[in-house]
Order: sequence, then structure tokens, then C-alpha cells
Amino acid sequence: MYSKPAFLFDLDGTLVDSVYQHVLSWKDALDQEGIALSVWRIHRKIGMSGGLFTNQLLREIGEEITEERRERLRKLHAEAYRQYSDSVLPLPGAKELLKTLSAESIPWAIATSGRMETAEQNLARLDIEASGVPIITRDDVEFAKPEPDLFVAAAERLGVATNNSLVIGDSIWDMLAAQRCRALGVGLLSGGYGAEELQRAGAFRVYEDPADMLNHIDEVGGRRRNA
Amino acid sequence: MYSKPAFLFDLDGTLVDSVYQHVLSWKDALDQEGIALSVWRIHRKIGMSGGLFTNQLLREIGEEITEERRERLRKLHAEAYRQYSDSVLPLPGAKELLKTLSAESIPWAIATSGRMETAEQNLARLDIEASGVPIITRDDVEFAKPEPDLFVAAAERLGVATNNSLVIGDSIWDMLAAQRCRALGVGLLSGGYGAEELQRAGAFRVYEDPADMLNHIDEVGGRRRNA
Repeated sequence: MYSKPAFLFDLDGTLVDSVYQHVLSWKDALDQEGIALSVWRIHRKIGMSGGLFTNQLLREIGEEITEERRERLRKLHAEAYRQYSDSVLPLPGAKELLKTLSAESIPWAIATSGRMETAEQNLARLDIEASGVPIITRDDVEFAKPEPDLFVAAAERLGVATNNSLVIGDSIWDMLAAQRCRALGVGLLSGGYGAEELQRAGAFRVYEDPADMLNHIDEVGGRRRNA
Repeated sequence: MYSKPAFLFDLDGTLVDSVYQHVLSWKDALDQEGIALSVWRIHRKIGMSGGLFTNQLLREIGEEITEERRERLRKLHAEAYRQYSDSVLPLPGAKELLKTLSAESIPWAIATSGRMETAEQNLARLDIEASGVPIITRDDVEFAKPEPDLFVAAAERLGVATNNSLVIGDSIWDMLAAQRCRALGVGLLSGGYGAEELQRAGAFRVYEDPADMLNHIDEVGGRRRNA
């Protein structure tokens, strides 16, 4: 087995600081549908695909799941998020981390549960053209996280094996998906989950944010030259 | 030592579902002051007094702390929170938990790092008149959490000892303050911290939210009759 891993990144909460805005956007959407749900429970589901997310939440509280309702919630969330998204910024070190990997010719890709529409805005914040990097979105696969399909597709796009890849994410769904495809999960605290939550979900290493990960890149196979 | 504890409650994130709205209100305020800070870092400081919160954050990022700046941030936060606070609701089980304690003649009080102005709105959501219950706010003490003064004052108001009290809160600052005054900390996940974060800060028991705590009230000294 090759020992120089490829880096497969989640986007929201991992490279851009958008989790809390997504949380309150879902809260607004659910409120408008008359569904009362505590905000922390929404936070704990974030990072799943939107469809799975609403299915799970509705099932947990015993509400009816219909295709119309799921679609309404998706639209209400997108509308609400547009109002919150002005304040979304790249996470500290995100641009530098990606630049460093590129400079070292280390393969990396992005795999997000979001749609290309929203992903493009986030990539722009990272000064990245969507056409210039390998990016897999919800539009490209049948099943999103915690299914491993997004990361499997990202590895395929790079021509690498998932069992020789790192999956870098902020949510336990990223860590579960990493294990499912035998990648190693690296957890970041920047999505607002606790370190132990990520470790329990299988993270083999946890950092605060991309800047902290870049500072410790040697620990996870990001060193490619003698030093 | 008496073994039937009094219950001293935090308010935001413990009885009302307001933490995430406070987090983004602080983010808006800091943005307006030109201070770039990741949202999860703001979340991790929430529950401290506003003054201490801004001191700590500004010190961590090496920004200048002046009285004017602290006051500006306080006002900007209050303005932003007014826009977010429409969506704030009581947490599941909060009203029932307080009613059950009252019905059992178990002494309880509220101790919040917030000011009476915002506390009153939150109490109204719980159908509580501020004049009718023992409530200690930031206005009443010199030092707020993680100092234990708020809980000490709440216990004094009830005529009980802190070392015979439970402190129920959602943040690690509540748990640290509980230990400082030899109360037992009960952590709730409803503020969005992980269970292990609360346990590491000294929580002797952790529940999801007030409803979950009420379901397990016998575990923490809330049973006063033979059953």
C-alpha cells in the first residue's frame, strides 16, 4: 500500500466558516413549516445531505415525510441561507493549506453534501474557480454523507484509492463516511463539534481548523520532502 | 450535610433555546468592529459575561481592549440579537421542569450572565414573571461566570448552601463555576457543547435538555417522596 495520502476535503465548516449560518437557516425553514426543533439538534445533523437531514429530523419527531415537504424545506433553507451567507468567510488557513498541498504536488479534492450552486459561492471565497479543481457535489452522486459515495467519487476523480486517502471534515458524518471507505478521518473543530465527538466517530487526529492542521501537516502524511 | 439539593439554573441554552442566536449576534458585532473570528470560537466562549467574553476574545487575537470598544461591542451585540430573538423558544421540558420542582416544594432559582433587560424577555417565554421568582443577573454581582458569584448569590437568595445545590447549565463556564462554589454541575447538551466537554469541565451528570433531565430527575436528587 502506498503511504503518501491524497487529501479529500469537506467544504462547509472545514474550509469555509458557514456551519452556524446553515444551522439557523434550517431553524428558520423548519419554523416556517411549523416544526419545532431545538437548534442544537439541527447542528448535530448538519453535514448530512439536505434530503437525508430532513428525513432524519422529521422521523425523529414523528412528523410526516413527503416529497413535497422535503422540497419545500429545501427551498426555505436556501432562501434563508441567502440572507445569512453575507457573513461567511474562509476559515483561517484554508487557502494556505490548499496552496501548500498544490505546491507540494499532493493530490487534493473537495467533496461536499451541498449542491454546486452553493458550493460555487464558497469556492469563490477561497479564491478557487470551480472548474479548476476536482470537486464532487451532491449533484454528482446518488447518496450523500454519511454514505461514503462523495469521497469515493472524489478519490476516483484524483485516480487514487480511498484507503490511501485522508478525509478532512468537521462533522461526525465525515468521519463515519471516511471509515466506510477505509480512508483516515481528520476532524476539525471549526464546525463546532467537540473533539471527543469526532474521535468517537473515528477521527484519527483532530485539529482546531485548517491553520492548525497546516501547522501539524507532518503528523498526517503531508510531508513529501526530507527536512 | 443536607442531601436534598436546591436547583440553580442557567438561563440561555439551559431553559431557553437562544445560544446559536447569541453566537451569530456576537459574530455580527465583531464583524462590524473589523474583528475576524471563527464562529465556533465565539460559541466556545458563550455563557461567560459579555465583558469577560470580549476581553478574552480580544486578548486571544491580540486586539486592543478599551472600555469604549467593549461598550461598542456590547451595544452592537444587543442590536443584532434583537433581530435574531424572534425565533427564540423555551427548550423542551423547561416549563414542566420548573413547575414540577415548584409542585414538590423544591427550591430553585435562575442565575444568568445576561442583563435583566434580556432575561425578562426570556422569562416571559417561560411564562414566568421576573418579580415572582428568585433570579440573579449580571446586574446583581460584580463578577459573572466562570466566577461562581451568580450561583452563590442565587443560593443566598434561596437561603441554601451552594455545597448543597445543583448548578444546571449548558456551558463549561457553568460547570467550572459550580465546582468553584462546591455545587454539583449538571450539564445539558441544549447549548450545543459535546457531552465530554461538559464532563471534562466537571459535570457529574449530562442530559440532552430540560425534558430529558425531568425524565431522570430521580438521578440527581429531585425525588422528595417515596415512590
